[in-house]
Amino acid sequence: MIQGVFDNTQVKELKGKMYKSPLPLSYRNDDLVADFVTDEERVIFDPSKKFVKQHLENFDKIPSFELAGVRDALHFDPSRISCGIVTCGGLCPGINNVIRGIVNELHYWYKCRTVYGFRYGFRGMVKANGIPPVKLDPAAVGDIHLKGGTVLGSSRGQQDTGLIVDQLEELGISILFTIGGDGTMKGAMDISREIERRGADISVIGIPKTIDNDIVFVDHTFGYQTAFSSAVEAINAAHVESKGAYNGIGIVKLMGRDSGYITAAASIASGDANFVLIPEIPFEMEGERGLLNLVRTRLEEKKHAVIVVAEGAGQELFRRDHVEHDISGNVIHSDIGLYIKDRIKADFDRLDFEYTIKYIDPSYMIRSLPPIPIDSLFCSNLAQNAVHAGMAGKTEMLVGYWNGKFTHVPLSSVTGKRKKVDPEGDFWLGVILSTGQPRYIGNDTNYLLRTR
Amino acid sequence: MIQGVFDNTQVKELKGKMYKSPLPLSYRNDDLVADFVTDEERVIFDPSKKFVKQHLENFDKIPSFELAGVRDALHFDPSRISCGIVTCGGLCPGINNVIRGIVNELHYWYKCRTVYGFRYGFRGMVKANGIPPVKLDPAAVGDIHLKGGTVLGSSRGQQDTGLIVDQLEELGISILFTIGGDGTMKGAMDISREIERRGADISVIGIPKTIDNDIVFVDHTFGYQTAFSSAVEAINAAHVESKGAYNGIGIVKLMGRDSGYITAAASIASGDANFVLIPEIPFEMEGERGLLNLVRTRLEEKKHAVIVVAEGAGQELFRRDHVEHDISGNVIHSDIGLYIKDRIKADFDRLDFEYTIKYIDPSYMIRSLPPIPIDSLFCSNLAQNAVHAGMAGKTEMLVGYWNGKFTHVPLSSVTGKRKKVDPEGDFWLGVILSTGQPRYIGNDTNYLLRTR
Amino acid sequence: MIQGVFDNTQVKELKGKMYKSPLPLSYRNDDLVADFVTDEERVIFDPSKKFVKQHLENFDKIPSFELAGVRDALHFDPSRISCGIVTCGGLCPGINNVIRGIVNELHYWYKCRTVYGFRYGFRGMVKANGIPPVKLDPAAVGDIHLKGGTVLGSSRGQQDTGLIVDQLEELGISILFTIGGDGTMKGAMDISREIERRGADISVIGIPKTIDNDIVFVDHTFGYQTAFSSAVEAINAAHVESKGAYNGIGIVKLMGRDSGYITAAASIASGDANFVLIPEIPFEMEGERGLLNLVRTRLEEKKHAVIVVAEGAGQELFRRDHVEHDISGNVIHSDIGLYIKDRIKADFDRLDFEYTIKYIDPSYMIRSLPPIPIDSLFCSNLAQNAVHAGMAGKTEMLVGYWNGKFTHVPLSSVTGKRKKVDPEGDFWLGVILSTGQPRYIGNDTNYLLRTR
Amino acid sequence: MIQGVFDNTQVKELKGKMYKSPLPLSYRNDDLVADFVTDEERVIFDPSKKFVKQHLENFDKIPSFELAGVRDALHFDPSRISCGIVTCGGLCPGINNVIRGIVNELHYWYKCRTVYGFRYGFRGMVKANGIPPVKLDPAAVGDIHLKGGTVLGSSRGQQDTGLIVDQLEELGISILFTIGGDGTMKGAMDISREIERRGADISVIGIPKTIDNDIVFVDHTFGYQTAFSSAVEAINAAHVESKGAYNGIGIVKLMGRDSGYITAAASIASGDANFVLIPEIPFEMEGERGLLNLVRTRLEEKKHAVIVVAEGAGQELFRRDHVEHDISGNVIHSDIGLYIKDRIKADFDRLDFEYTIKYIDPSYMIRSLPPIPIDSLFCSNLAQNAVHAGMAGKTEMLVGYWNGKFTHVPLSSVTGKRKKVDPEGDFWLGVILSTGQPRYIGNDTNYLLRTR
Repeated sequence: MIQGVFDNTQVKELKGKMYKSPLPLSYRNDDLVADFVTDEERVIFDPSKKFVKQHLENFDKIPSFELAGVRDALHFDPSRISCGIVTCGGLCPGINNVIRGIVNELHYWYKCRTVYGFRYGFRGMVKANGIPPVKLDPAAVGDIHLKGGTVLGSSRGQQDTGLIVDQLEELGISILFTIGGDGTMKGAMDISREIERRGADISVIGIPKTIDNDIVFVDHTFGYQTAFSSAVEAINAAHVESKGAYNGIGIVKLMGRDSGYITAAASIASGDANFVLIPEIPFEMEGERGLLNLVRTRLEEKKHAVIVVAEGAGQELFRRDHVEHDISGNVIHSDIGLYIKDRIKADFDRLDFEYTIKYIDPSYMIRSLPPIPIDSLFCSNLAQNAVHAGMAGKTEMLVGYWNGKFTHVPLSSVTGKRKKVDPEGDFWLGVILSTGQPRYIGNDTNYLLRTR
Repeated sequence: MIQGVFDNTQVKELKGKMYKSPLPLSYRNDDLVADFVTDEERVIFDPSKKFVKQHLENFDKIPSFELAGVRDALHFDPSRISCGIVTCGGLCPGINNVIRGIVNELHYWYKCRTVYGFRYGFRGMVKANGIPPVKLDPAAVGDIHLKGGTVLGSSRGQQDTGLIVDQLEELGISILFTIGGDGTMKGAMDISREIERRGADISVIGIPKTIDNDIVFVDHTFGYQTAFSSAVEAINAAHVESKGAYNGIGIVKLMGRDSGYITAAASIASGDANFVLIPEIPFEMEGERGLLNLVRTRLEEKKHAVIVVAEGAGQELFRRDHVEHDISGNVIHSDIGLYIKDRIKADFDRLDFEYTIKYIDPSYMIRSLPPIPIDSLFCSNLAQNAVHAGMAGKTEMLVGYWNGKFTHVPLSSVTGKRKKVDPEGDFWLGVILSTGQPRYIGNDTNYLLRTR
Repeated sequence: MIQGVFDNTQVKELKGKMYKSPLPLSYRNDDLVADFVTDEERVIFDPSKKFVKQHLENFDKIPSFELAGVRDALHFDPSRISCGIVTCGGLCPGINNVIRGIVNELHYWYKCRTVYGFRYGFRGMVKANGIPPVKLDPAAVGDIHLKGGTVLGSSRGQQDTGLIVDQLEELGISILFTIGGDGTMKGAMDISREIERRGADISVIGIPKTIDNDIVFVDHTFGYQTAFSSAVEAINAAHVESKGAYNGIGIVKLMGRDSGYITAAASIASGDANFVLIPEIPFEMEGERGLLNLVRTRLEEKKHAVIVVAEGAGQELFRRDHVEHDISGNVIHSDIGLYIKDRIKADFDRLDFEYTIKYIDPSYMIRSLPPIPIDSLFCSNLAQNAVHAGMAGKTEMLVGYWNGKFTHVPLSSVTGKRKKVDPEGDFWLGVILSTGQPRYIGNDTNYLLRTR
Repeated sequence: MIQGVFDNTQVKELKGKMYKSPLPLSYRNDDLVADFVTDEERVIFDPSKKFVKQHLENFDKIPSFELAGVRDALHFDPSRISCGIVTCGGLCPGINNVIRGIVNELHYWYKCRTVYGFRYGFRGMVKANGIPPVKLDPAAVGDIHLKGGTVLGSSRGQQDTGLIVDQLEELGISILFTIGGDGTMKGAMDISREIERRGADISVIGIPKTIDNDIVFVDHTFGYQTAFSSAVEAINAAHVESKGAYNGIGIVKLMGRDSGYITAAASIASGDANFVLIPEIPFEMEGERGLLNLVRTRLEEKKHAVIVVAEGAGQELFRRDHVEHDISGNVIHSDIGLYIKDRIKADFDRLDFEYTIKYIDPSYMIRSLPPIPIDSLFCSNLAQNAVHAGMAGKTEMLVGYWNGKFTHVPLSSVTGKRKKVDPEGDFWLGVILSTGQPRYIGNDTNYLLRTR
C-alpha cells in the first residue's frame, strides 16, 4: 500500500470531562436505544486476516483508529459555549450540508445557541481583514443543503495563526470546526498548537474536504462521490462526440492533482472510457506501445476513442519536453489534456491520418454542484460526529471514515501526505478490466520485464 | 447486531484446477501490476478491536469471508465453455450493468464466446415454457447499461429444478450466473444441489439483487444506493407539498418489506423528513406520544410535516385493527401509507383540526431507473468478480461486499435470513439525530423504562 | 376548434394615466433600444390566411388580443404604491419564479418598495383568518426560483370578496397579482368588480396557473412544459417495467381533469407510449376494437404495452358501470387508472391470459418540481408583463401568451371555460402517428362511418 | 426586424400527384378525425394587426408560409420507393429523434421499407469515399432517441454534388432527408438543382439543425431549447463559484457564432446572470461605462458577478486589439471568454483590486446531450412533417416552424442568412429587465444620444 500504515498516534483531548451528554442514549444493549461510544472502541486499520495475524503477538498495539460517536462525558457545558465554523480551499459538493449538519446538531441536541460562521476561509478569521463573522442558526441554514458551494465563502492560503487565535479568544469560541483540505488541516494543526501554547480551552475539529479524495487514512471524503458521478456525464459527452465523427477522439480532463480517484471511478462507471491516465501511473506518448499509437490503432478498428486524464497525470512528459523545447512557454504544457490533444494533432497530421478531436474540461461545473444524496447522507453523519468529538473535548483531529466506521484521526498523522490509487489494487484493476487498456502505456521493457 | 455473525461456512468448489488464468496479473508486489488473489486471503467479519480480541484464542477460526478476485488457477478452460445468465424477481437499478459486465469480462478477458441469456427469469430456463435463450456478446450488450430494467426480462417464483438443470446440461453450460434476491438465491442453491447430485460440472454463482438491501453478510447490494437517492426526490416533493398548504402533511411510502434501509437513508439524505417509520421499530398511532399526536403538535408549531414510511412498517397495527374492525376488508389496511393517511384524516377531522394531506408512492418509478454512477461502478466490479469466481470453479456462492472488499459467501449462509437496520446502531442514530423524532413513537412505558 | 374564437372584449383600465414610466425604453426604431408598447398593438387571433380572409370586410373588428409590454404612460406613481401577491390552488412548477419576477421587477425597475405576500391563498387575504401577510423584497425572494411549490403557501376555495377588498384597502394596496387557475380567476374577477363597485383605485392582474394547460386563449401556461417533461420519466418507468416482465403492462395516470395536454405531449415525447387516453376522446373497454382486446393483441405480438391515461379520461365508463353495478362504491371507480387496471385484471384472468401489470401515478412528484429552464424563462417574462400591465392601470385581466406574444386577456372572456385538445388538430395527430393507436378505441360503427 | 420579411417564394414540387395517402385522415370537420392539409393553407408571416393592415390592399400576396401537414395526394407510391437520411455538421440534441421519427413514419404509416442512412454526413454519400450506407428500420432505431449525438455520424464540409446525385440515383432513392445547418441547406439546394438539371425524380427535404437557433424564418430549431436549458447549469455553476470566493467572478462562454439566442435565453432562465454579451450588441471594455468598470463596481457592492458571453460576441474588440498589438498571435484573442478573463485580470491586477475568476465553457457537454422532452416532441413532429412533404413531392424546402405551425420554407429563401436577436425586441428586453444591465455597455455618447 503506497499510503503506508496508520502510525497509531493517539487523539488529543482537552483536559477534564465534567458534563453529561444531553443526548438520550444508553449503555444497554437490547433496549432499542443507541449506545454511547467509549474511547476504548477502535477499528483495526486493515481487517484482512493476514494483517491481523502479523500483529497477534502485540495485539494491543495493532494499528487502529479511535471510533467516532456520541460520548456521554463531555468536556464542555454544551448549552453555554460558542462555536465557530470556517470553510477553506476550493469548492466541493456538500460543504453547505456539513455546515447545516453542525449547526442543527449543536442547536437541537446540544442546545448550543451561539455559532459563528467565518466568511471567506481563514481570511475572515483575522479581525483586521474586516470581514465580520455571521451568526448561524437553523433558520440561517434552512435550505442551504440544496445548494452547491459554501454559504460562508472560502479562500485559499494561510493567515497569521496568532491573529486567528486572538479572534477565537475574543469571540469566546470553544470549538472551531475547520472544513478544508490538506492545507487547511495544516492550518488547523497550527491553530491547535497555538491554542495549546496559550493554554486556551478550545477544541479544533477538522472535517476533511478534498474533491480529489486524497487524504490519507480516510476511505473517502464528502463530495468525491458526487464529483466522479458528475464526471461520468463528461465522459458520456466525449463518447457521444467521438462516435459522431469519423475517427472521433474525445478527451476529458478531470480533477486529480496527485491522485486519480475521480478519473478512475468515473471511467469505470461510465463504461465508455478507453484510455485512463492518472498521476500514479506514468505513461509514454511515443513508440509502438505509446498512447499515440494505441489511439490510432483503436481508431482504425473502432473509429472512435475516449481518453480520460487526471489533471496531474503525465507531468513527467512536460519535464522532458521542457528540455527539448526550451523556448516554448509553460502555458501550453501546463495542461496535460491540451498537451495530449496537441500531440495527437501534430502526430496524426504528420501521418495524414484523418481524425476529429474534442476536448472537455468540466471541473468547475462539478465542484459547484450540490451533493448527490449519498454524499448528503455522509455529510450529515460527518457533521454530527464532528460535534460529538468537539463536545467531548477531542482536539487537533479530523473526523475520518474507515472500513464503514466514522473515526477520529490525529491531524499530525494526516497532514503533508497524499492518498493515492494503488496500481496493484482492486480499484485500478477494475479500470484495466473494464477498459481493456494495457497495464502500462509505453515501451519500457524493463518495466514490463518486472511483470510475470 | 440483529443479523448475527457469519457462520464461517466454506465456499464450495468444483474439483480440479487445471487451467491458468489468461489475465495478465502477477504475484509480485511493486511491479505496478495487480496481483492474483489466493483462497487464503480473508477479510475478518468485524474489524472492531473488541471483536477480534474475543477471538484471539482461536484466531484461525475467527469469522471471516473468502476474498473475491482474480484467481490464477482455473477449473474451466475459459475459451471453451459456455455460460448462462438469468435475472429474477423485481426490477432493480443496475441489472443491465451486471449483465453487460459479465458478458464483457467473459468475452474480452476470458475469451469465452458463448453466453446465453435466459428470458424472463427461471421461467425461461425450462425448455417446455417455449422461451428460447438469446445469445449475448459485446454488441448485444453495447449500451444496455444506460437503461433501467433488465434486457432479459424477469419473473417471480420458482420452476422445476430438475428441468432447469436439464436445460443447463442440454445447452452445455458450465457457469450459471443468477441475479436475484433471497428467493432466487434459494433457487440457485437448489439448482447447485441438483447439479451436485447428478455429478455435473457446473458452477452456480449468485449476484445478490435486492433493492431493499436486506441480504445478510452483504454491506450493500447494487441498486440500493440509486434507490434511496431517487427516493430523496419523493421526500422533497412531499416537503414542498406540505409547505405549500396550511398544516400540510406529506406522506411518502418507500420500498422495504422487512428492512428500513431505503427509508432511513433517504430520510437522512433529504434533510427534510420529520417522522421516519421502518419495519424494525414498532410505533403506535394513538396516545400522547403516538404518531397522531406528534404530527398534530408539530403542525401547530411548524405548519407542515413530512412522514416517510417503509412499506413493511407498522404491520402490527393491522393485526390489532383487524381484531377491532373485523368486517373491514384487507384492501385498505394492507398499505401502511394509506393506513396512516386514513387514520390522520379520521383523527384530525374528529378534532376539527384543519390540514391538507398528500400521499406519494414512487416505488415503480425508482425500481426502473438506470443506476447512478456509484452503482454502475459497483455493478462492474460485482460482475467481474462473479466471472473470476465461476472460472475458478467456485459454486453455490454469491459475490458479496464486506468492509470495502468483494467476498465469496456460501449461499447456505445467506438464504432465509434478512438483514435489518439495527435500532441501536449508528445508522438509525443518524435518523434520530437529523429528524429529531423520539426514539420511540408510542406510549409503552415498559419500553421506555428499559432506556436510561 | 372546440375552444371557440376570442370574443374581442376590451381590457378594462383604471381611469387616468398621470405618470411616465421610469423604464429606459424609446419609441424609435434602430436605436438598439427596446420600444414602448401602445394599446393599439394587437395580435390577430388566428394567423392563418383563411381566417384573416374571412374578416377582411370588417378588418378592424377581427378577433385580436391587446399586446402586453412596457407602457410609457402609467396610472400609478410606481415608487409610491404598495402591491400584493397571492398564490391559490394546487402546486405548479414556477410559482416561486413568478413571485420572484414580480418582486424584482417592482423593486429594481419601478422602485416600488412595499410588496405584500399573502399566505395560503385567498384565505390569507381575510384579516379575520389571522394569517398576516409577509413583506417581500429581493432578499426575501433571493433563491426561491430554485425551489418548487410556493413560498407563500396556497389554499383552495373562495373567501368573502368584501373582506378581501377590505384588507386590500386597509393595507393600501394598489395592484393585486393573483396567481391561480380558473377558480382563482373567477375570484379575481369578483374582487375586481367589488373594487369597481366601491370606486376603489386598485388593479387586479391575473397570472394564469394551470398545470393542465386548460385556460382558453392562452397557448400554454407556466409549469405545463415542466409537467409533461417530468411525466415522460413516469412513462419511461412504465416502459421499462413492462419490458421487464412477460406480457408486461405499464399504466401511467397523469394530470388532466378536462384536457389531455400533459398526457398527449408526454406520450409523444417519450416515444414509448402505445395507448393514450384523454378526456376529449371517448373510448370503449370491450369488443373487438375496445381497449382490452387491443392491449391483448399487442401483448401477443410485442410482449409488452404502455397505457398513458389522463385522470379525466373515460369518465363515461364510470357512469355506465354505475348503472350496471349499483352496489359498488365510488372509491374504486373514481380513478380511471385503477379502473383500467382492474378491468384488465378481470378480463385477462378470465381468459387465463398471463400478464403482469404495474400502475404509476406521479402527480404529486410532478406538481412540486422546480421549473425547467424554459418555464423559468416564461415565468420571468410573465411576471414582468404582469407588472407593466398593473402599472399602466390595466385591470380584471390576465397575462396570456398567444402566437408567440404576451397578451392582455379580459378575465370575463376566460373564466368558466376549458381549453381542450382538438381531436382533429395537429397535436393529437402527432399522438396517433407516433403511437400507431387507432383513431378511435372502440366499436361504434356510426362513429367510424363518419370518417372517410 | 433584422431578419427581414419572408420573400413569399413558392415551395418547389416534383410534377405529378398520382397516389392517394395511406393515412386515415379525412376532409370533414367534426368527425373527430384529423384533416388532410391542402397547399392553399398558409400562415401569415406576422400576425400583428399592424402588419396585416399594411397588406390589406393586396392581401393575396401577404407574406405567408405554406402549411406543413399530411397531404392526401402523393407524388410517390410510398410503399415502392427508397429514402435516404444524412446528418451533417456539429452535434445537436435531437438528431437521433429526427432520424427515428422519419424511419418510423416511413415504415409504419407509409409502408416504405427501404431507408438508407448515410454515414458521416455528405462524405458518406460519395461512393468513392468507401463508407457504405446502413439500412434503417424500426428495430435499428429502437432506442436511439434516448441517446445524444447521431447514430449515423456526421462531418463538416461539402462533397462533390454530382457524385452525391450519382449515388442517389444508383441506390434508387426517391426522397433525401438532409439534417443540418445553413451549410447543409446550401448543399441540399445544390443537390436539388443538380437533380433538377438531370431531370431526376428525387425530392430533397431539409430538417434545419442549428443549436444556435440562427436559421431565418424558423421560430426555433430542435435542440436549441435543450441547449439553453443545459447552459443554465453552467451559469448556476458560475454563480456558485462566484459567491464562494471574495469578489468572485464567473465567466460562462456559450454557443452562438452570430446569434445570441442560447446566451440570452439561458441568462434569463438562470435568474443569476449579471452581464450578458451577444454578437448582436457591441460592447466596450474600457471607460467609465465599460465592462471592466461595471464589473468592479458590482463587486464592490455585491462581492460577486456572473458574466455570460456568446462565443461570437465582441469580435470587434479583437480587430481593434489586432491593430494595437500587431505582434501578438491570434490564439489568445480568438476566444472572447478568455479575452474577457485576461482583460479583467490585467485591469484588476493593475488596480490592485482583489478578485477570483473562474471560466466555464460547457459547449461540448451541451451539444452531445439527448434532447429534453419538449425537443423530443418537436423532433417527432418535424420528422413526420418532413415525410409528409417528401411524399407529396415537395422539394428544395425545409420544414420550418412559425407562429406555432409547421411550415414549408423554400431553401432559396433561407440559405446564406442568419436569424439574429432583435436588440429592440421583447426577448432582449427580458435580458435587460432581469439582469439590470445597462442597455449599452460602453461610453459611446452618440449611441446613447440616439435613445430617448
